[in-house]
Amino acid sequence: MDQPIGVIDSGVGGLTVARELMRQLPREELVYLGDTLRCPYGPRTEEEVIQFTWEMVDFLMNKKIKMLVVACNTATAFALEQLQRELPIPVIGVIQPGARAAIKSTQNLHIGVIGTEGTIKSEAYPLALKNINANIHINALACPRFVPMVEQGVLSGEEAYKVVSETLVPLKKKNHIDTLILGCTHYPLLRDTVQKVIGEHVTIISSGEETAREVSAIMGYQEKLFKGNREPQHKFYTTGEPTVFETISQAWLEQPVSEIKNVKLAE
Amino acid sequence: MDQPIGVIDSGVGGLTVARELMRQLPREELVYLGDTLRCPYGPRTEEEVIQFTWEMVDFLMNKKIKMLVVACNTATAFALEQLQRELPIPVIGVIQPGARAAIKSTQNLHIGVIGTEGTIKSEAYPLALKNINANIHINALACPRFVPMVEQGVLSGEEAYKVVSETLVPLKKKNHIDTLILGCTHYPLLRDTVQKVIGEHVTIISSGEETAREVSAIMGYQEKLFKGNREPQHKFYTTGEPTVFETISQAWLEQPVSEIKNVKLAE
Repeated sequence: MDQPIGVIDSGVGGLTVARELMRQLPREELVYLGDTLRCPYGPRTEEEVIQFTWEMVDFLMNKKIKMLVVACNTATAFALEQLQRELPIPVIGVIQPGARAAIKSTQNLHIGVIGTEGTIKSEAYPLALKNINANIHINALACPRFVPMVEQGVLSGEEAYKVVSETLVPLKKKNHIDTLILGCTHYPLLRDTVQKVIGEHVTIISSGEETAREVSAIMGYQEKLFKGNREPQHKFYTTGEPTVFETISQAWLEQPVSEIKNVKLAE
Repeated sequence: MDQPIGVIDSGVGGLTVARELMRQLPREELVYLGDTLRCPYGPRTEEEVIQFTWEMVDFLMNKKIKMLVVACNTATAFALEQLQRELPIPVIGVIQPGARAAIKSTQNLHIGVIGTEGTIKSEAYPLALKNINANIHINALACPRFVPMVEQGVLSGEEAYKVVSETLVPLKKKNHIDTLILGCTHYPLLRDTVQKVIGEHVTIISSGEETAREVSAIMGYQEKLFKGNREPQHKFYTTGEPTVFETISQAWLEQPVSEIKNVKLAE
């Protein structure tokens, strides 16, 4: 119960999931590993993504994590089932929680999904949604300009509004979705801008928030949550440059990050 | 996987949970048992509640349910842990899911909870909330006039508004909660009126919706959801008068109910 929760991502995007875990489960300790050196996973082959994911998982399993959160849409789409089958600890990805939250939220059964080209092409969200309710109508849209913009720190203001509104035209045209899934862990940082563009009548679902909620549910149900009092010590690892990672993580997590170490995964 | 999900309640309140299960998991079949004859459980002793709950559970276990939802706050407060320990199937109550959803929603850590006198006295919600985050501030308020009003079908209009606004005065005075848990399965029927009284800035959490969401999460995680296509046949049982139960259930579920049977639990 006092073991940490492991979080893996291809880079910094998963930090939005980590932030939500810290907020919703303030007693839990995290070990975060971002594979920034080989990021993004989107354009990689399925084989590569699965191999890289296992390398990250092996590293975290050595840290004695009690649960694994795959905070990366691409890794979730390709590797989640295999990890769930083969690991002795609970494993949660970011896709199912977002899908379930959208199904809870929608009244008219029209759900929009935005994500990277890789995630949209994988059809992981439509599959997850249809698996639960075959009558859901899905409007999926790739937003390739969002991630570079977010990583440059452009989150609001005129420029962000322009890019977001130009990108979301096809979704606004159809105009009847009542729920929109942010199907990329970078997008919660654009949430306010997306809400302004898409309109107040649309409920926005952030995968990170929903994933943290389901971690809480499953760990609570399995009685694996930490029960005592402590000041959690989170640990962050990156395969890339720690100083770059540090700048982004402090901004995104809205708190100082004490320990960031570089780690080599493959030879 | 094609087995039904069991839902128990002291009466008709759990129908709001059943409705959400049908909406969020449209392929699943339900077996619902309402102990209307001995309702309400609120004023009963802990011993009685535990005994009555086990009688209901034994009846549903004979129906080969794959999961049990305790859609009754009183039974959840008194019997959930025992049921989770002793039953070979997953068991979910209505309190934890509402608590987790409120923690996800709140930004200022001030959460309101309304419920029957029994539920508020049990302190089950504050306990569940504090167990996850000790810094949460809770304003709990018993609303004894709500259940009789709802069962009389008074859900909106002047009379409902008057009762709700008179009752919620102590919550409005403090005026700083940003999230309110409807900690009674009857209250979702008053949701619009409560929202009007408490203000649009407060996020209302309905235990039923959140419980259905967690049923979906836990069954999905355990791969126990029904995968094929079917027109689910729900079954309803009551220890009281089936015709009375039928009238309420058709109104609350917003769909015709095909099969309601009377059942005797105790000698």
